[in-house]
Amino acid sequence: MKIYSKTEIERAIDIPSLMQEMENGLRWASHGKAINAPVSFMHFESPKGDVHIKSGAFLDGEMYVVKIASGFYENPLLGLSSSNGAMILFSQKTGELIAILLDEGRLTDIRTALAGAIAAKYLAPPNISKIGIIGTGTQAKEQLVHLQHVTSCRNVLIWGRDQTKAKFFASDPRLKDYYIVIAQNIEKLTQDCNLIVTATSSSSPLIFGHQLQPGTHITAVGADDVGKQELDASVFDCADLIVVDGLVPCSCYGDLAHAKNINLNSVIELGRFIEEPQKRKSEWITIADLTGLGIEDLQIAKAIYARLNLS
Amino acid sequence: MKIYSKTEIERAIDIPSLMQEMENGLRWASHGKAINAPVSFMHFESPKGDVHIKSGAFLDGEMYVVKIASGFYENPLLGLSSSNGAMILFSQKTGELIAILLDEGRLTDIRTALAGAIAAKYLAPPNISKIGIIGTGTQAKEQLVHLQHVTSCRNVLIWGRDQTKAKFFASDPRLKDYYIVIAQNIEKLTQDCNLIVTATSSSSPLIFGHQLQPGTHITAVGADDVGKQELDASVFDCADLIVVDGLVPCSCYGDLAHAKNINLNSVIELGRFIEEPQKRKSEWITIADLTGLGIEDLQIAKAIYARLNLS
Repeated sequence: MKIYSKTEIERAIDIPSLMQEMENGLRWASHGKAINAPVSFMHFESPKGDVHIKSGAFLDGEMYVVKIASGFYENPLLGLSSSNGAMILFSQKTGELIAILLDEGRLTDIRTALAGAIAAKYLAPPNISKIGIIGTGTQAKEQLVHLQHVTSCRNVLIWGRDQTKAKFFASDPRLKDYYIVIAQNIEKLTQDCNLIVTATSSSSPLIFGHQLQPGTHITAVGADDVGKQELDASVFDCADLIVVDGLVPCSCYGDLAHAKNINLNSVIELGRFIEEPQKRKSEWITIADLTGLGIEDLQIAKAIYARLNLS
Repeated sequence: MKIYSKTEIERAIDIPSLMQEMENGLRWASHGKAINAPVSFMHFESPKGDVHIKSGAFLDGEMYVVKIASGFYENPLLGLSSSNGAMILFSQKTGELIAILLDEGRLTDIRTALAGAIAAKYLAPPNISKIGIIGTGTQAKEQLVHLQHVTSCRNVLIWGRDQTKAKFFASDPRLKDYYIVIAQNIEKLTQDCNLIVTATSSSSPLIFGHQLQPGTHITAVGADDVGKQELDASVFDCADLIVVDGLVPCSCYGDLAHAKNINLNSVIELGRFIEEPQKRKSEWITIADLTGLGIEDLQIAKAIYARLNLS
């Protein structure tokens, strides 16, 4: 049994190969080979904290993963990161513990951002004029960092409730190649941007259908739990193509859960879409609703473990 | 962050104090203070393996637990224990990882057996003439080992599908004070014993209502997952008192899930029963249906950690 620290894990991160592993995992899942166990949630009030426990395996796999990721939102006041957690790999043949990745939530941040990048790679318009980011927290930043691997667009509008955080957003050195401007409101952002990513913990809709221009792709990653919502149902009503990471979680607690007019038979899972991509028409409005899957955690954990175990 | 091996954990086990902590936890839970997150299950086919992931916390607690416990049933052919897993304690204030207990499933075995002992302590007839154990695996043995703390009865009938395992059952030195006889069939066992514990992985009922004598208590711990069953619905139909560890898990996938005639309002949670015990009438038939709770894992993990951290 091996234990790896966050520092060791960070040295083993190679984004292009992790993205490839994520795509592989999503594709295998589209063939019915994935076991995404039901997600466990815990919610604490004092101080405010959420814990998500996700587990995943493949039918014919060698390892299963249990991933614990938490957000304790008052941590920054104590000088601590709000994210925490670990990924644990077990043998799927004997149940023995193989490796503990003490990532403190870092790998969850990355796999969520990579899912966003993969959605943009397959769904966004070929010519992205401007990227719109809604949210100014860690995940909003990670989304923009990882989009660099799938688009050459470097013009960005950001919007957040907290203007101070919005101002500090661009100071991350990993975003130095972007030209980032703060949008005064969401309408301005939806008008100018044809690739929009929402990454907030909002509990009420931020984007509405009438705000969207034809030819826009939206990836929504914030609604990953009951009570969260970023996209109004009207966004789904005007969408030409709806892609989700998982039909079950998205229809239970993703943004899709609020879209009552949508026939779920018309919704495509991301893995299936990667396997059989459709060419988007220029005027299409497309949505990727992402909640995060246990098999994404598994793919990331396995890939990091393989590199750490080699070195 | 601290990591403890199974050997260290085993040295820290003190059964009477663990039983007290379990009772405390169940009582607190009966006051609505528990957060038992939904359980995650994974089932593997090749080789056959089950994984249960349980998480628990108290509203005003300092730590939450995530517990992974697995059973890989072909492991003994490889010279390995079928049980495996770990318990992980996190700060409920910041999400930071506090301790990893590499118990390899041992603490789950103990907490399940302790729940059985607590059920017997509060529900079994005052004069236990003979203990009946259905099942010959690890948990059946643990149940009997831990019953020594709550009853002076040392006469035991056991029954198992596998006669070879039944013969080896009594060779465990921890059972040396018992006088153990193999029952030829379940009818003989239900006739002679007034405290019966079922601890099997059966998927079809083993005990039926017409087999039970007045004045019998049954604790059923085997059905802890969809598709498992030890007690026929008729057992519940003839019960005078039904106690469960948790109403939600028991009515979803415990034996109670199969008892369609039972009004759930008449079912009492074990913690509530400990808080307000009822004196059993001599002719009563009573049932304790136990699936295992995240807060039981929490109580055990906290108690073991406290002792390890002191030493």
